[in-house]
This record gives sequence, C-alpha cells and structure tokens, in this order.
Amino acid sequence: MRQRNVKNQDEIIAGCDRYIEYPESLKGKWKKEFGYKELRLEIGIGKAKHLYEMAKLYPDVLFVGIELNKGVISLAIKKILRLEKEEGIVCNNLRLFSFNAENLEDIFAEGEVDKLYLNFSDPWPKTRHEKRRLTYKSFLEHYKKILGKDGVIEFKTDNRRLFEFSLVSFNNFNMKFDMVSCDVHKDVEDGKILLNVITEYEEKFSKFGPIYKCIVRF
Amino acid sequence: MRQRNVKNQDEIIAGCDRYIEYPESLKGKWKKEFGYKELRLEIGIGKAKHLYEMAKLYPDVLFVGIELNKGVISLAIKKILRLEKEEGIVCNNLRLFSFNAENLEDIFAEGEVDKLYLNFSDPWPKTRHEKRRLTYKSFLEHYKKILGKDGVIEFKTDNRRLFEFSLVSFNNFNMKFDMVSCDVHKDVEDGKILLNVITEYEEKFSKFGPIYKCIVRF
Repeated sequence: MRQRNVKNQDEIIAGCDRYIEYPESLKGKWKKEFGYKELRLEIGIGKAKHLYEMAKLYPDVLFVGIELNKGVISLAIKKILRLEKEEGIVCNNLRLFSFNAENLEDIFAEGEVDKLYLNFSDPWPKTRHEKRRLTYKSFLEHYKKILGKDGVIEFKTDNRRLFEFSLVSFNNFNMKFDMVSCDVHKDVEDGKILLNVITEYEEKFSKFGPIYKCIVRF
Repeated sequence: MRQRNVKNQDEIIAGCDRYIEYPESLKGKWKKEFGYKELRLEIGIGKAKHLYEMAKLYPDVLFVGIELNKGVISLAIKKILRLEKEEGIVCNNLRLFSFNAENLEDIFAEGEVDKLYLNFSDPWPKTRHEKRRLTYKSFLEHYKKILGKDGVIEFKTDNRRLFEFSLVSFNNFNMKFDMVSCDVHKDVEDGKILLNVITEYEEKFSKFGPIYKCIVRF
C-alpha cells in the first residue's frame, strides 16, 4: 500500500508500545525477548487487519509486521488501537516497525522466522520495475536466510500478473509448492481451505475477480 | 474426452492413411521414417482441432496425436478429413493412433519427442482418481523419458482444480516453469501471448471462466 505522509504520524507511532524503534537490537532474540516459541512475519502490512486478526487467532505466536512507509504504519497503529478498544482486548503478541525488506538479515537471525506472509503486495506492473516485486529472486534470497528449515511463505494477491510472475519466480528459485489456489474464496466456500482471514482490501477486490494464493517453501 | 463406441469406427480408422496401426514399430525412427526434424506429441486429442490447426501452422513439424478411445479417434479422423476437404489441403505431417499414455516408452525412444501438448485433459475431480490425471507424477516419469533435453510440456485447461493440482505436481517433480497464465484469452487480447490455437471446446468453455496455461520443462 502506497501512502503519503500522515498527519501526526510520528506522534501516533511514538504512542504505540508495540512499535519497535530499534529492531536491529532484537536480532536473534525476538522469541526469547518476548517469550514466544514461534514467530511469524508479515511484510507489507497495509492496514494491519490480517496481522491483527492472526494475532488474535494465535495468541501463542509472536506476529511481527513490517512496512516501509511510516504513514502506512501510523494508520495501521490507529486501526489496531481502535479495534482493540472496540473489542476490549490487547494483542500483546503483535509488534510492528518501519523497515525495508531488503535488509531483513539485519533484523532477524538465520532461521529465526517460522512463517512469512506476503499479502496483496504492490504488483509493480511494469517489467522494468519487476525487481521491486516482493517475490523477485533477490527478495527470495533474503527470505531464505531468515526462514527456518520448515518455514513457509504464504502469498496472497488479487493481481493475476503478480501471481503468475511469483509462481514462476518461486519455481525458478527451486522452491517447493505446498498448495496453489487460483480462487481462494471459492475454495473457502467449497471447504477446501478452512481459514482465510479477510482484510478490507481483499473483501473489496474479490468482487472484481479471484483472489490467488500459494504456500511455498525453500 | 470420454466417448462411447462410434458407429463404423473401425472402418473410419481403417480408411485413414495417417492412422498408425503399429506405432511400436516406429520407435526411435519417427522423424527419419516420415522425413521431419521435429516431432510434437499431443496426448488426448479430443476432436483433433488443435492437432490439425498446429499441423497446418507448422508444416515442417511432425504432429503425432494419441487418444485412448477408438471412438474419439474415429470422430477426430472424420473431422480432419472434412476440414481438409473444405480447405482443399492435406496435412501430411499429421499422424494419430489409439494408445495408452502409460506405455509411451514402447512407442518413442528416449528424447525422441521435442514438445508435448496436454490440452483440456480429463480433470478426474475425485481425489481417489488423481493418479489418472495426465499430470500425475507417474505420467511425468513417462514424459521425462521421451522428451528431448530442451523439450517442454504445454499444458492448457479450463479446469481450475486440475490446473492447481498440475502446477504443484510439476513443481514437486522438480520441473522448471517457463510461463504460467491464469487467463490465456486475456493474455492474447493484451498481446502477451501471440498465438493460441483455439478448439471448439476451448471456445465454448472460455465463456464460463478463464483458460489456464503453463509451459514447463524437466
């Protein structure tokens, strides 16, 4: 999600006790520091609905969300705090920070991440921008380093071209496919997929076409 | 395509000079025997529209079509002969015979086939029948043996579940993806795919949903 600066974004971020100012200091210590046995990372959290709902569903798992843009992060924080207030809960197993996915190895030790989510990433439709797609091989190199031995990437998008590109990219990187769905919502209806946390974005765009998903591993 | 017996099917087949009665006798000799440098094989030819159109498009390539069911073959022959009469041509580079894809190595020598087409194969939707799907790993074993070093499989289907299954199957068999399209007709419109020979089946079913395609290699 691209976003300009948001009014008071620095104050909003500073006021959130689950925003990590210096994530580098936690490298290799994430689970120990916060007392969890499993860490799942979402890259590009958008409005953080997926991160929030997953954190609620799996309270024993530490959910870490990153997003390059500070404006987006501040809106995500506002959203999380509003939802928590409405629902009378606090997701203590949720952390987020602003970061560039190219430098993941500065933040996470080898094999420290148990699962990685890429949801509705920017499709960068122009071929000359393909290196910026989060499923481009240079990003896969980074993911491979921080993902644990049995770690998987769950990738979901409404963008057909990004999905096709990503399948070829994962395959050409010698990744193994656990599952592929060219219409997740139909699969949920049919009972083939049991759980699918739906964000506002997904809800909105599923009206215009299928939502694609795959689960892959190194 | 499943089909019961067709009236006069044996006579129709016997009357076609491009039907091969004993394909085993040609093993290792296909190209030499018929004077071609390239051999492309289609497994499951349906009404043979794809085979026929491709044979017309590439007169320097030998097109061999196989189909288990003799009733289907006889209808394909009738169709080819009718089209040739209408168009005033004869596709000398086309051969077909009735055969089971499980025994391909009896017919073709190692690396003898340059390209393999699987078009709108039977989806065998029930999980207990997955071994019958033409993209199941046991079939891939056969294809691997007869396909040449640079040979590819072009797979096209309107069945989403068969496509998803096949992508996972190809990938898990360590095959490399050259391209994936979750909507070929849109890609042709957009100029991303230049050529797409459309059969009656494809034309009919593309109205109900996307046509999926991928090109993969061992």
